Amino acid sequence: MMYFETSFPVRYYETDQMGVVHHSNYIRYFEIARNTMMADGGFPIETCESEEGVMIPIVKVECTFKHPARMGDVLTATASIDKVPLAKLVVRQSVINQRGEVCAEGQVTLGFINSKTFRPVGCPERLAELIRERIDEK
Amino acid sequence: MMYFETSFPVRYYETDQMGVVHHSNYIRYFEIARNTMMADGGFPIETCESEEGVMIPIVKVECTFKHPARMGDVLTATASIDKVPLAKLVVRQSVINQRGEVCAEGQVTLGFINSKTFRPVGCPERLAELIRERIDEK
Amino acid sequence: MMYFETSFPVRYYETDQMGVVHHSNYIRYFEIARNTMMADGGFPIETCESEEGVMIPIVKVECTFKHPARMGDVLTATASIDKVPLAKLVVRQSVINQRGEVCAEGQVTLGFINSKTFRPVGCPERLAELIRERIDEK
Amino acid sequence: MMYFETSFPVRYYETDQMGVVHHSNYIRYFEIARNTMMADGGFPIETCESEEGVMIPIVKVECTFKHPARMGDVLTATASIDKVPLAKLVVRQSVINQRGEVCAEGQVTLGFINSKTFRPVGCPERLAELIRERIDEK
Repeated sequence: MMYFETSFPVRYYETDQMGVVHHSNYIRYFEIARNTMMADGGFPIETCESEEGVMIPIVKVECTFKHPARMGDVLTATASIDKVPLAKLVVRQSVINQRGEVCAEGQVTLGFINSKTFRPVGCPERLAELIRERIDEK
Repeated sequence: MMYFETSFPVRYYETDQMGVVHHSNYIRYFEIARNTMMADGGFPIETCESEEGVMIPIVKVECTFKHPARMGDVLTATASIDKVPLAKLVVRQSVINQRGEVCAEGQVTLGFINSKTFRPVGCPERLAELIRERIDEK
Repeated sequence: MMYFETSFPVRYYETDQMGVVHHSNYIRYFEIARNTMMADGGFPIETCESEEGVMIPIVKVECTFKHPARMGDVLTATASIDKVPLAKLVVRQSVINQRGEVCAEGQVTLGFINSKTFRPVGCPERLAELIRERIDEK
Repeated sequence: MMYFETSFPVRYYETDQMGVVHHSNYIRYFEIARNTMMADGGFPIETCESEEGVMIPIVKVECTFKHPARMGDVLTATASIDKVPLAKLVVRQSVINQRGEVCAEGQVTLGFINSKTFRPVGCPERLAELIRERIDEK
């Protein structure tokens, strides 16, 4: 398994009038974990887009909300990959607060498309290689 | 079935560097359809919160992304309810562009909680009644 | 003067834990008024970017917040232009609620840049023409 | 002078179809610097709201945009306070990228209101004290 996590405090503008983080932001936290994982692996998303000409749009999101995050919380967003992707990349994700409570968890499926034609392509080799190495480590 | 739809143009800040609407915004479009439906039914979410003391947090979101929305598009967000809720409200949702293409579709499950204690409560009777009437109409 | 206004309801995700619309959203409402004005004039921002190769970044924003907008409000965002732009476009802006109360008002200065080089260019003639006609009308 | 800074990477959803960070996000970055400063000083905004019953809404924002931030950038948001506030708090702010380039700079004026009545109050003593100490340090 390839696993990555990154932490950040809740931002005020992410709260809503329920006094908790608006649910749409967990989808954004998931993205932060994925993109920070790519940058950490030496192949950031903006390099993938500019050098490989490959964009990685979201195909599907599933997210279950378990515990509200609030202003003052420091959240950890996680991303786990079990399999080297071919046409689709599946990432298991979660957001956990500073007390270890799971705020949200879910799964995101991503595709790969040519950034000019918007047509499906395979997973860029640099990303596949990065995932392969990290999966093998553990 | 209770069905509702509402339309609005894409906003520039909703686009990302792929040149399309960022995926997290479809989750927000879903919410707009639900809240406009409640307001249209004479029981807006802010009344539910302030007069009934009931908040309606999201329990689960599933969303499949099918076609990118872009600046210039006018989107229609839809919400459909098949069943009068007891403890949970399930809403089928979609976002469709001006050419009838489905950009995203999914399902959102909501709960009901007391706005002071954050404990689960049943569906407020005014909301149940509103849904019951509209379901029976069709 | 060229004047334009467009109306829309507050969206739930735009509120924060103060129970009012987060201040950053008024900056976004200003943008909605400007972009809807361009689209209404037959020269939408996405056409300006794709056909003219000109992007219109913000140079400066000033905004005074006068009255909080809340969930349930229907806001009107306005844009007024007094002068046909050369290198810079100055737009006076406001956000007004359904009771006529001014929620925010300010001024936004925009520039024109080549979308490839990011270097300053003059105002595209189609936009200057559009503004000239509308200013002359009144 | 009381000075504070905090750093964070650009988030993908903050970019727009110009390929740079959407201008409204700098207003949010300014807020992050202010709130992190308060938390760092032992008096976080959520404590101010819940324990003192005082909310700190924005009265005025001025922001000049100087250099676009992009995906991959690590930004530093700064907040400087020159004077212990009475009825209004004035904060000078900036956002600087990892190469030291100023992306945006401006000034934010905040007020203090009772969180129940929404009426103006003075600066909470704990916040005034915190600012007084830090200003005197330098």
